[in-house]
Amino acid sequence: MTELGVVYRNIKRADRATTDELAKHGAATVHEAMGRIGLMKPYLRPIYSGAQASGTAVTVLLHPGDNWMMHVVAEQISPGDIVVAAVTADSTDGYFGDLLATSFKARGARGLIIDAGVRDVKVLTEMGFPVWSKAISAKGTVKATIGSVNIPVVCAGVLVNPGDAIVADDDGVVVVPAGWVHKTRDKAKAREANEEDKRQKLASGVLGLDMYQMRELLEKSGLKYID
Amino acid sequence: MTELGVVYRNIKRADRATTDELAKHGAATVHEAMGRIGLMKPYLRPIYSGAQASGTAVTVLLHPGDNWMMHVVAEQISPGDIVVAAVTADSTDGYFGDLLATSFKARGARGLIIDAGVRDVKVLTEMGFPVWSKAISAKGTVKATIGSVNIPVVCAGVLVNPGDAIVADDDGVVVVPAGWVHKTRDKAKAREANEEDKRQKLASGVLGLDMYQMRELLEKSGLKYID
Amino acid sequence: MTELGVVYRNIKRADRATTDELAKHGAATVHEAMGRIGLMKPYLRPIYSGAQASGTAVTVLLHPGDNWMMHVVAEQISPGDIVVAAVTADSTDGYFGDLLATSFKARGARGLIIDAGVRDVKVLTEMGFPVWSKAISAKGTVKATIGSVNIPVVCAGVLVNPGDAIVADDDGVVVVPAGWVHKTRDKAKAREANEEDKRQKLASGVLGLDMYQMRELLEKSGLKYID
Amino acid sequence: MTELGVVYRNIKRADRATTDELAKHGAATVHEAMGRIGLMKPYLRPIYSGAQASGTAVTVLLHPGDNWMMHVVAEQISPGDIVVAAVTADSTDGYFGDLLATSFKARGARGLIIDAGVRDVKVLTEMGFPVWSKAISAKGTVKATIGSVNIPVVCAGVLVNPGDAIVADDDGVVVVPAGWVHKTRDKAKAREANEEDKRQKLASGVLGLDMYQMRELLEKSGLKYID
Amino acid sequence: MTELGVVYRNIKRADRATTDELAKHGAATVHEAMGRIGLMKPYLRPIYSGAQASGTAVTVLLHPGDNWMMHVVAEQISPGDIVVAAVTADSTDGYFGDLLATSFKARGARGLIIDAGVRDVKVLTEMGFPVWSKAISAKGTVKATIGSVNIPVVCAGVLVNPGDAIVADDDGVVVVPAGWVHKTRDKAKAREANEEDKRQKLASGVLGLDMYQMRELLEKSGLKYID
Amino acid sequence: MTELGVVYRNIKRADRATTDELAKHGAATVHEAMGRIGLMKPYLRPIYSGAQASGTAVTVLLHPGDNWMMHVVAEQISPGDIVVAAVTADSTDGYFGDLLATSFKARGARGLIIDAGVRDVKVLTEMGFPVWSKAISAKGTVKATIGSVNIPVVCAGVLVNPGDAIVADDDGVVVVPAGWVHKTRDKAKAREANEEDKRQKLASGVLGLDMYQMRELLEKSGLKYID
Repeated sequence: MTELGVVYRNIKRADRATTDELAKHGAATVHEAMGRIGLMKPYLRPIYSGAQASGTAVTVLLHPGDNWMMHVVAEQISPGDIVVAAVTADSTDGYFGDLLATSFKARGARGLIIDAGVRDVKVLTEMGFPVWSKAISAKGTVKATIGSVNIPVVCAGVLVNPGDAIVADDDGVVVVPAGWVHKTRDKAKAREANEEDKRQKLASGVLGLDMYQMRELLEKSGLKYID
Repeated sequence: MTELGVVYRNIKRADRATTDELAKHGAATVHEAMGRIGLMKPYLRPIYSGAQASGTAVTVLLHPGDNWMMHVVAEQISPGDIVVAAVTADSTDGYFGDLLATSFKARGARGLIIDAGVRDVKVLTEMGFPVWSKAISAKGTVKATIGSVNIPVVCAGVLVNPGDAIVADDDGVVVVPAGWVHKTRDKAKAREANEEDKRQKLASGVLGLDMYQMRELLEKSGLKYID
Repeated sequence: MTELGVVYRNIKRADRATTDELAKHGAATVHEAMGRIGLMKPYLRPIYSGAQASGTAVTVLLHPGDNWMMHVVAEQISPGDIVVAAVTADSTDGYFGDLLATSFKARGARGLIIDAGVRDVKVLTEMGFPVWSKAISAKGTVKATIGSVNIPVVCAGVLVNPGDAIVADDDGVVVVPAGWVHKTRDKAKAREANEEDKRQKLASGVLGLDMYQMRELLEKSGLKYID
Repeated sequence: MTELGVVYRNIKRADRATTDELAKHGAATVHEAMGRIGLMKPYLRPIYSGAQASGTAVTVLLHPGDNWMMHVVAEQISPGDIVVAAVTADSTDGYFGDLLATSFKARGARGLIIDAGVRDVKVLTEMGFPVWSKAISAKGTVKATIGSVNIPVVCAGVLVNPGDAIVADDDGVVVVPAGWVHKTRDKAKAREANEEDKRQKLASGVLGLDMYQMRELLEKSGLKYID
Repeated sequence: MTELGVVYRNIKRADRATTDELAKHGAATVHEAMGRIGLMKPYLRPIYSGAQASGTAVTVLLHPGDNWMMHVVAEQISPGDIVVAAVTADSTDGYFGDLLATSFKARGARGLIIDAGVRDVKVLTEMGFPVWSKAISAKGTVKATIGSVNIPVVCAGVLVNPGDAIVADDDGVVVVPAGWVHKTRDKAKAREANEEDKRQKLASGVLGLDMYQMRELLEKSGLKYID
Repeated sequence: MTELGVVYRNIKRADRATTDELAKHGAATVHEAMGRIGLMKPYLRPIYSGAQASGTAVTVLLHPGDNWMMHVVAEQISPGDIVVAAVTADSTDGYFGDLLATSFKARGARGLIIDAGVRDVKVLTEMGFPVWSKAISAKGTVKATIGSVNIPVVCAGVLVNPGDAIVADDDGVVVVPAGWVHKTRDKAKAREANEEDKRQKLASGVLGLDMYQMRELLEKSGLKYID
């Protein structure tokens, strides 16, 4: 599956408009709409709080301590894409900084998801270029070994195919397969509508126990109240 | 000790007024006033910086990946309480989000301490509902297995009895047994008064070495100065 | 090497003016100018974002759970110094808080690098006293065992000799040996000038592939493009 | 709760004979018999594989980097006891070695559970003195600060009261409250008997799906088979 | 991609004979033959040293704290298979013990790869049933939520498709896509032959520097020898 | 300090005979004789239990994912040396396997200390070539970037100068500066003699409390006994 030394130029991206709609629902709701799958591991954190992004994945597979392919993937970015970077071994080095961010941004990228480290985070924050990473580290990298671009990669525990939709915010990063964006959007929408109503009830003091009619089931499950 | 499947409705809470006074001394001072015990492990972090809370503990024991009991504990919240949630195994899932926060807040809860993950942190921050957690994660949970409410729990390495006082801020979370709040408040107060005087001396350039009269003891301990 | 129970009063500090110049280049650039060495492990994080400091190292070796030597090192601080604290075993306790910060600041310290924990971070942030630490923890320490001041220490994986230059910001902490500050400053300067030009090109859409003339080498390395 | 500087001489130990019976069921079965609670965190590992022990807890609370109280607890050991050691902060230092093991063994201790590190593991293994610890480390400790003996402690995430029964083997360490040993022994016994029969069926090729009659429930839960 | 609630009964397994041949080359050689990809994260460790297995993957996706699907996957095992278990969130619970091992073995399974914990390791070792896991833990699980069997899963950072070849030993676990087993076997074989010759030369004192003719390239790269 | 791209051919090794004597005292005793310093972090573990080695350090600095310099250091090994390998960033890759071990052994090396991963551990164990490492991993490395040989390195938190004495066993790895071996040997010897006497007393039931005359000091420190 994982081919080394290849760059796929033509990938089928998830529908742009629908992908854009996903963003407003947020990672938590989209993750629920997916049936509670597709969430990257929670060690990935945004470099600044309040970061939000959605877009279509262009993927890159790096070698540890080597960011050469970051320049190769830059050329494959279309406006609306998010770069998803995996490394063939655990690493916290800083594979990405303000120069690459300038290039990615100029190409239309909306953000970076990287299962490793980044640097120049102060400038990235000022640029408003959101990154979800495992670490922040000034550690530089070499350019010596080729990897691949736009092959399926595993990033922070989740398989990402090029073109998949990515939804990322403070709560984490969710991957929606390209073929699932419509149904996921629909479910997320339904869920959201639903939530507004619940929020008002709960705010008025109604208990989830009553609103979700949990009392009987809890009793059947053996829950005992003791005064 | 740890009973499963029970909810204690009547708990003896630490004196409210004294608990409220503890808050202004902060976690570090209260921890010192306690004799340097009662501090939860430092992996618990507030979801936003500057978060501060004190209150009386209502406790809940959850199963991994299951937040059913969060709805049960909501009903047991009285104004001024802080919910303390433990899980029977290590987990970083998101057991708590904006809907539950809305419900907890409506019941008068001042915050949540959870030895696991939470989500919707952007909304929680906007709501000003403080949470100290081990992780932030969009990962949802099921409602399948019952736990307990208001039993003694171990949360982030510390035993919490229902009704204990909780003091939490950027420095961490301290548990003060209900019966200790008066003496702890008194010691914290004494310590604080004391500190203001020290602060001014140190700010004027006086050394701790002299202020605390450490020089002789250091010399006795064998410390050598080399020019 | 590591002598216990000694305080060196006279250390040779890196040239002050040059050390000050290093600050503006930032940790990432200085680390590159050093040949990609001298960076402390990325688990050291600033207690507030945007923290920046450079200065000359005064070092202190502590024992686990014991901050006695923090008072001893305070006396050895000269204006422009940064205290670098190592512990003889892994620890996340809070060895440093607002009182010590007041004292360090009064002595002219510009910050603290500590391979352990700190507390009172809210006050430290308000004071604008930057700290790079492994943890934030209210856990207090005793004053029972002597260590050393101004001996070479290993802090977060890097050897620090007293007088070395320290450059720290959001990207991490870099140690520049005292004898290297001039050449490191020169290389950092050259690199920076260079970067501004690259940034503009990349912002205009030029690819790194072309700007760095990577295409031929990538092809030689076997990279294949697939349409 | 946690008193500092006290040694309780008289503790009520779990019934010896019943505690001894628990051992043969092993940690996993006893944990199930307890209702799936009471298990210490899995980072505690035996220093040699095949280690097995059960006994009554004498507890000790240590300060980080300080093993003074290990000598104090030695005097409180009765034959059949297991020492349970907690530290007031995370630590991996080596608080226990062959000399203390010799002393503990002479007093009749059956093992040590410590939420920190130990050393001299080669000799301990040759002595057949089992230890479950978080780390192995040659790092020595000081004797400067007093803690407590035979107070309730939290060790590796579980509350241990002096006198509680401990069951430990390759699968981990389980704490059985002194008052629960009879019912836990009975449930463990029942479970075990039950298991032998199941083992034989499964060995003959019968599926758990059929033996536990899971097929209908799985179907109801929505499980689909696809050819 | 990840379907929930489905069991695929018919999967295309990698060629059995070739898969069996892979075993003798070991994980390190097969990983190299793959082009240095396909290796699971090194936190997966065998429960006993010297464990070795190869076979074809049947996959199972579990929910945290829930091992229900382990009984479902048992039925899908054919002789020569290795079960590969992933969980939808990080977990160290013990999802597998001696009863399930008895069942898996009776079905012809050669081992288990699980990105979580196992228990009864003493009995598993006596049975000679090899398991590579993230943890050893007595913590039991519930049977409440359905997952899937024989869908593609990400296990310890690597995508595993049902039917892929698995090679596991003390050095780790490598996944070979079903379609790659022949070429991987051939490359591993070539590499191995090659290695025997090298081993003898190195044993006789020949340096790798000379055997691999590295001296010139090192000099070109700027390596300096200093006497 | 850290020069890149250099190999020092002539290093001053610690006295061989004295270094050899250190071995029999073991890491824990030598660490105490050093004044409780010089111990590498406890995450370094031997690849097989019972491993023991002492010798003089030849050092090597590697880049992440690159083991080229392992071949360069091989030439600098003299009989009785132990190779100490550091990496410029955290890494768990397998930088060393049976071929390099064959070469190192042929050159007279007694073992390897590496702040990263190794592979072929089964063969290494059969060869009796001891390695202390941070990880075991089949992950291979490239040969692309030069580092240095026989410069001072920081390995697992400790500064190692070429020629320093290394003592390693199940309890960990201690570094003794070349100039300290005589006094450290003397102190270790004295300590050991002393220990045998203590061991016999403790084995006969004498308490450390009495043997070390701790009772008075404990009482002064405020320890209270409660019946």
